[in-house]
Amino acid sequence: MEDSSKPIGIFDSGVGGLTVYRAVRHRLPNEKIIYLGDTARVPYGTKSLATVQRYALENSEFLITKEIKILIVACNTASALAVDLLRQKINVPVFGVIEPGAKRAVEATKNGRIGVIATEATIESGAYSRAIHRFDNKLQVISRACPLFVPLAEEGEIDSDITRAVAAKYLGPLKRESIDTLVLGCTHYPILKPIISEVMGDDVKLIDSAEAVAAEVAGALSELGLARAGNSGWGREGSPSRDEWFNTRFEDAPPTSAFFVTDSARRFCKVAERFLGEKVDNHIEEVEIWGHDELYAH
Amino acid sequence: MEDSSKPIGIFDSGVGGLTVYRAVRHRLPNEKIIYLGDTARVPYGTKSLATVQRYALENSEFLITKEIKILIVACNTASALAVDLLRQKINVPVFGVIEPGAKRAVEATKNGRIGVIATEATIESGAYSRAIHRFDNKLQVISRACPLFVPLAEEGEIDSDITRAVAAKYLGPLKRESIDTLVLGCTHYPILKPIISEVMGDDVKLIDSAEAVAAEVAGALSELGLARAGNSGWGREGSPSRDEWFNTRFEDAPPTSAFFVTDSARRFCKVAERFLGEKVDNHIEEVEIWGHDELYAH
Repeated sequence: MEDSSKPIGIFDSGVGGLTVYRAVRHRLPNEKIIYLGDTARVPYGTKSLATVQRYALENSEFLITKEIKILIVACNTASALAVDLLRQKINVPVFGVIEPGAKRAVEATKNGRIGVIATEATIESGAYSRAIHRFDNKLQVISRACPLFVPLAEEGEIDSDITRAVAAKYLGPLKRESIDTLVLGCTHYPILKPIISEVMGDDVKLIDSAEAVAAEVAGALSELGLARAGNSGWGREGSPSRDEWFNTRFEDAPPTSAFFVTDSARRFCKVAERFLGEKVDNHIEEVEIWGHDELYAH
Repeated sequence: MEDSSKPIGIFDSGVGGLTVYRAVRHRLPNEKIIYLGDTARVPYGTKSLATVQRYALENSEFLITKEIKILIVACNTASALAVDLLRQKINVPVFGVIEPGAKRAVEATKNGRIGVIATEATIESGAYSRAIHRFDNKLQVISRACPLFVPLAEEGEIDSDITRAVAAKYLGPLKRESIDTLVLGCTHYPILKPIISEVMGDDVKLIDSAEAVAAEVAGALSELGLARAGNSGWGREGSPSRDEWFNTRFEDAPPTSAFFVTDSARRFCKVAERFLGEKVDNHIEEVEIWGHDELYAH
C-alpha cells in the first residue's frame, strides 16, 4: 500500500529535467519531490539502448531507496528507451514524457502533420512516432535529431546567431514538410523556444512535454489515491502562462524537496542557474549510485 | 620486470583519442596497442575533478588487466586532472598529453605569448599554464575554454559556417592578445584545424599534442628498454606530413591492436568514421568496466 505522503521521484540525465520538476511543482505544490540528475554520465542522447537502460535502472533503484510513491522519467531519451523496462522492474507507477507529449501533439494538429525533434537516440528509437500512431495511425510524423541543441542550450546560446544558424539547418526540412505542430522532444529544447519559434513561424504549435507529464501525473495521483492534500489550492489546470512559469521561483520549493546529483553539485548549480535564470544552491547532495568504490581513494 | 612484447595501453573518454592512437601507430608501427574509449561516460570535459579522476582510474585498471607495459592518457581532460594520481596508483609508466604539448608550444613561440584552447575542465585545472611555466615562467599564457568545439567536431561540422561563427567567438579574444602559438588542448580540436587556422591566420602556429606525446613515448620506450624490435624501420622523427598522416590507414593496424569501448561498438565506429574519414569496424569489443551488474538484466 503506497502512502500519499511519500515523495514523487524524478530523474533526468542532468539538469534539463528541471523543466519537468518546475512543471510538477507548479501543478502539485504540496508534493515532496526528490530529483536525481545523473550529471556524471550526461548526456544520454548520444548513447546506446543498453547503456541508457542500465543508467535508467540504476537511477530508479536509487530513487526507490528514497521511498518514492511514483517515478517520473524527465529525460526524453530515457523515456523513449527505458520506460517499458522500468515498468517491469520497478514497483511504483512509472511516467515517461513521450506519451503525454505525443497526446498533446495529436490533440493540437489540424493538418495531421506533426514534427518531432529530439536527440539521436530518441529519434532512432521511433518512440514518438509509435506513441503518436497509437492515438491515430493516419497522422504523418516527420522526425529530426538535433544533436547540437543540447550543448547550445547548456552553453547559454539562447539569443544567438549561432543557434539561429543551427536551427535553420535542422528545422528547414521540417518547415518544408508543412508541419503545423512540433514536439520539443528533449528537456533542453524549451530553452531554445524563442529561436525555434522564429524559424518555424507562428503557425506551428510547439509542444513541451514538461507540462503535459505534470498534468498526467496530477490526474494519476488523484485516481490512485496518492495525492497529498492541498494540491488543488494552488495547482491548476492547463498550461501556466509564460509569466506564471517564470515567476514560479525555484527557491519557493518547500524544504521537503531534495536534489541529488552524481557529479559535482557546484557544476549542477552553475548550469541550472544558466538554464533557469535563478540560483539553485540549496538542498543539493552529491551521491554515488554505482559501484567500484575500491578503486577510488576519497 | 616489464616485457617489451607487451602492448601499449591508451585510453580516452571516447573517440577523440584515435588521433593519439594514429600518431603512436605511425611512429611505433611494431608496437601492439590496446585502446579503450569510455564512450558510455563521454564527455569528460564538462565534469568535475573527482569524477574524471574516478573514471581515469577505472579505465587504467581495465588496461592493466590487459598487461600493458606503459599507459598513455590520450584525453586532455584526464591528463590535466588525473595523471599525477595515476602515477601514484598504477604500476607502469604513465604519459599524459599536457606536458609534451606544453613543451612543443614553449619551443615554438617567438614572442612568448602562447594561447591554449581546451575543455572547461582542462582550462579550470590550469594544467597547461603550469606545464608551460615549468619550462619558462616568463611566458604569457592566454587560455580559453571552447565547449562547443567537441560536439561540432563529432557532428561533422568541419567545413561549416556554424563552426566558423563559433571559432570567431572563441578565438577572437586570443587573436587580439597577439599570441603566436596556439595549443589545441583537446583531442577533437585537430579535426577543426582548417577553420581554427583560418580564424587565427598563418602567423599563429598550431600545436597538436598527439604527435608530441607519440614522440615522447618513443623516446621513453627506448630509454626504458621497452621498445619492440623493428620500430625504427617505419617510424620516424618529426611530424608526419599531412599526406602521410591521412595516408596512414587505420586498417593497416596489425591484428595485435585491439579496441575496447564502454558503450556500443556500432556508435563508436560511426563517429570514428566521421572523425577519421575511414571505417574502423574490426577488432572492437564492448566491455563493462564498472560494477552494479545485479541491476542490469542482460
